[in-house]
Amino acid sequence: MKNTYFTPGPAELYPTFTKHLQTAMDEQIGSISHRSQRFRDIYRYTDEQLRELLSIPASHGIYFTGSASEVWERILLNCVEHESFHAVNGSFSRKFFDYAQSLHKFAHMAEKPFGEGFDAADLEVPEYAELVALTHNETSSGVQLRPTEIHKLKRKYSRKLFCVDMVSSAPYPDLDFSLVDSAFFSVQKAFGMPAGLGVWIANDRCLEQAERLQQYESMTIGAHHTLPVLHKHYKTWETPATPNVLYIYLLGKIAADFNKIGVGTIRRQTEDKARQIYRFLETNSAYTPFVAEERHRSQTVIVAQTNARPAAEVIAAVKTAGMIVGSGYGTFKDSQIRIANFPATTADQVGALLSKLNE
Amino acid sequence: MKNTYFTPGPAELYPTFTKHLQTAMDEQIGSISHRSQRFRDIYRYTDEQLRELLSIPASHGIYFTGSASEVWERILLNCVEHESFHAVNGSFSRKFFDYAQSLHKFAHMAEKPFGEGFDAADLEVPEYAELVALTHNETSSGVQLRPTEIHKLKRKYSRKLFCVDMVSSAPYPDLDFSLVDSAFFSVQKAFGMPAGLGVWIANDRCLEQAERLQQYESMTIGAHHTLPVLHKHYKTWETPATPNVLYIYLLGKIAADFNKIGVGTIRRQTEDKARQIYRFLETNSAYTPFVAEERHRSQTVIVAQTNARPAAEVIAAVKTAGMIVGSGYGTFKDSQIRIANFPATTADQVGALLSKLNE
Repeated sequence: MKNTYFTPGPAELYPTFTKHLQTAMDEQIGSISHRSQRFRDIYRYTDEQLRELLSIPASHGIYFTGSASEVWERILLNCVEHESFHAVNGSFSRKFFDYAQSLHKFAHMAEKPFGEGFDAADLEVPEYAELVALTHNETSSGVQLRPTEIHKLKRKYSRKLFCVDMVSSAPYPDLDFSLVDSAFFSVQKAFGMPAGLGVWIANDRCLEQAERLQQYESMTIGAHHTLPVLHKHYKTWETPATPNVLYIYLLGKIAADFNKIGVGTIRRQTEDKARQIYRFLETNSAYTPFVAEERHRSQTVIVAQTNARPAAEVIAAVKTAGMIVGSGYGTFKDSQIRIANFPATTADQVGALLSKLNE
Repeated sequence: MKNTYFTPGPAELYPTFTKHLQTAMDEQIGSISHRSQRFRDIYRYTDEQLRELLSIPASHGIYFTGSASEVWERILLNCVEHESFHAVNGSFSRKFFDYAQSLHKFAHMAEKPFGEGFDAADLEVPEYAELVALTHNETSSGVQLRPTEIHKLKRKYSRKLFCVDMVSSAPYPDLDFSLVDSAFFSVQKAFGMPAGLGVWIANDRCLEQAERLQQYESMTIGAHHTLPVLHKHYKTWETPATPNVLYIYLLGKIAADFNKIGVGTIRRQTEDKARQIYRFLETNSAYTPFVAEERHRSQTVIVAQTNARPAAEVIAAVKTAGMIVGSGYGTFKDSQIRIANFPATTADQVGALLSKLNE
């Protein structure tokens, strides 16, 4: 008997995953050369499906890395000469800031207490910041930064590069890529795949910045997965090093499944299920939604305080019914649970979880 | 009807791969948390199996990256303050050197013409080089650098860090890890897995160097997958970011299969099959082994000149019999083929390939 994973990543595999994996094995995708036409066709297909799903314009390339965390480093190396600005409202946006410091960038930060979120009006971007690093969905605290606020902020600071971490929410946020210069995600969240592939979307302004920085004798933009080298190979649907060919194939197939349903439907289903969960948390005295402000509540990673019992007991209780929810992040391990609301789990499955949580 | 891949990576999947993948799917390895005991058990198991297979002592940690190419960058960032030395005898050892230059290290190089190999006596390591970068097996040219020569060189320059690229040969080379400070490989070669995971072996001296460099205000060792952070998490069988959990599981299972056969047997079978292939190439006038010196001939990636026909015709001919061999690297595409000799292909399959090549 298999469990249903409501964990915020790695997460429940998307229902079509096994079928696509079987096809990939039958077609020996794990053995094909990354310099073959077969691979170039796979890359182009996955690119087309993601482009349709997320409305990515021709100005942006789609590149693959080992993980989304790797992209934090790549974008800082490639797009920041001196200064970056980070809106920190949880552990992952904080890690992005930490990466900037490790790379000896002059990193600015605006910070909110854990569980609170930003609006555009909260944020004053320092004059010399070249990159504005925003996290659409904080996997740790269950806080979202709404796309409308992201777009508003970009309009105010239009000359700066805007980069959006959509790791645990893509394809949910309806980002306007005429305003968002770069975004990235990993596949083990809402795409319902095993971990091991990062997706980096970056536009020509990011590329120009990387090319400009590379001219400077005094600085390096790194050696592996630099944007100019990724882009050079991308133009012929290749990658600089051997990529995770199998996962690129599978990602294309799942993105195609999403497109068949329609991203509008997927987004509406996500919101419907989130409403169902938050309503339960608000009306059941054993739980409280951790994020107080409704507009800052994540639609894909929902964090609840467990008032009646320690979180570990709640987690153990639902596990007896074959359902796995995530524990609270870091020091919130004892008092919170995290419930992923990704396309892989249906409204019925969410209903079953809430029934069990209600016991 | 499936093809048999004799390509030098991605390559033929190891025969047990499908079975292990099925078990992983049944056990929902793609969904488990990388912060769970289940994952820690998997990491420890894979570590134990690799340790047994390659005789890795307790002084060395085993870390995971997105690819072996990523390790080129990591080891240069973490272990080289100023100068590195590279023995270049093909395109991949050259890329390792290029990475050092991109990272603004002062990179020294000794170079051999394509198809020729090094002995220890050929190499004079510059006084201030901190890291000696050697490539055990050049996937591009089919040249090997024998472990005895690697060990001899290290004894001569014992204070320098020695790093060995064993991407397309592990577990074949019998490296003495009391002499080799660091080594790395990827799983899509001799381990018979799909691409998407790099394995980095590094000892306490590498770690100490990284920690020392990190003290210097004026330099960065990177942000993602730094050795100190990898090691800190490794101590509790975790990883800093979400790793490719599924592939780490599969690698452990295949390493265990290798251990059941015994690494001595696998190495002997590799040499037997290599002898079979080289003997064929030497006695058939349509082919010539590209590497003239017998002691420099790779046992795992065998490069042949095609004398009678363009390489593309040879490749097309064997493909009609369901066998895929690699094309020559870069400019040698038209005149060479590359035959991988990994554990996934049996002596009988090699025999069938040679029969077809003989037509």
